[in-house]
Amino acid sequence: MTSFHELEARIGIRFKNPALLTEAFSHKTYSKERNTQSYERLEFLGDSLLNFIVGDYLYSHCDEEEGALTKMRADLVCESALKAAAEALDLGSFLLMGEELKKDEKFNIHSDDLYESLLGAIYCDRGLDAARAFVEKTLLAGRRNFRADYKSLLQEAVQKKYRKNGVDYDLREIDPSAIGDEDRFESTVYVLGRAVATGRGRNRKTAEGAAAAEALRKMDHGEA
Amino acid sequence: MTSFHELEARIGIRFKNPALLTEAFSHKTYSKERNTQSYERLEFLGDSLLNFIVGDYLYSHCDEEEGALTKMRADLVCESALKAAAEALDLGSFLLMGEELKKDEKFNIHSDDLYESLLGAIYCDRGLDAARAFVEKTLLAGRRNFRADYKSLLQEAVQKKYRKNGVDYDLREIDPSAIGDEDRFESTVYVLGRAVATGRGRNRKTAEGAAAAEALRKMDHGEA
Repeated sequence: MTSFHELEARIGIRFKNPALLTEAFSHKTYSKERNTQSYERLEFLGDSLLNFIVGDYLYSHCDEEEGALTKMRADLVCESALKAAAEALDLGSFLLMGEELKKDEKFNIHSDDLYESLLGAIYCDRGLDAARAFVEKTLLAGRRNFRADYKSLLQEAVQKKYRKNGVDYDLREIDPSAIGDEDRFESTVYVLGRAVATGRGRNRKTAEGAAAAEALRKMDHGEA
Repeated sequence: MTSFHELEARIGIRFKNPALLTEAFSHKTYSKERNTQSYERLEFLGDSLLNFIVGDYLYSHCDEEEGALTKMRADLVCESALKAAAEALDLGSFLLMGEELKKDEKFNIHSDDLYESLLGAIYCDRGLDAARAFVEKTLLAGRRNFRADYKSLLQEAVQKKYRKNGVDYDLREIDPSAIGDEDRFESTVYVLGRAVATGRGRNRKTAEGAAAAEALRKMDHGEA
């Protein structure tokens, strides 16, 4: 029997009902041998909970419109992000496998699924606040400065509206003596050759992002 | 200015922050005229919250495996189900539209979106428990006897595994004197001509459903 004490220490949660942890890490080949539940039901629960927690976080912390929020969330909960979070906790090492599967050297552990089943188990054992804290600590920490990738969003919006690519940027440096050291780059964004917005920033990237964000806002409001 | 008092009475919630209700019913043509937020951000939040609430409900109330839970949820939160719930509350009549849109006789209100944005607003104003109570009362009530459609699920599973259709049922009536009036029908389900499971019920439908559920369980566990 695998002990989950090390995992509990790592995530800072001692389970009231340890059977939930066993369920969260039971591969179906393991649960089949014992006629118990595999992690898939908890993964089902954890998946929707994760989407809600991250959506709620973005809704509360970002002013972006729905399209940008959706894209930011997709980036935050994508398979590779969940795998990275799962691997930082070494979740795969706790997987409970059936006898045959243990011998299968080609078997790839779906650690992203384990992240979700563990989240489901935390919620069942400790409630929403504990689940939220777990996600913020293991998935969102270090990614606090959420910025939508406005340049990509603008490109997509132009492609969708005009059925062709046609976004260009022009950069100019503003005399630092006039404005100090901040935001000394100004970018103008052109859609199909027409200047639609400008934005400023400390470097090319932030200036172009600001210009794209303003262009998107204008397109959304029918002004561009 | 539309008054939301009637809606608040209808849903039994008096908002602490009525601005959330205005946001939840602001079409983008309305918010654009006022430079405020449309309902789309709350709809983004409400959509993921709804999936979580219904998923949590099914996880807690049903023993089915992940595939069946996913299908049951999809049925419960499908567009037509949300529209029916929205129409029972007459949510469309509270939509705040821009001046041009008011004149557009062809405009179709997306009342399913309003159900989600209202749910998001309830959550922001009153928290998870109030949001959960709202969903249970307006969407899940009257649909308490969740039964997965096992016959459809079995058909899909057989199609997926064998790449052909081949599910048949045989019904027989059991002598009532032997078992009383309950479950007097017994169905045997055949997959590609082979009898794999039987099930009993009060009528053909429940007997066949029970047989299909047992066949699915066996397939899941590699026994059929």
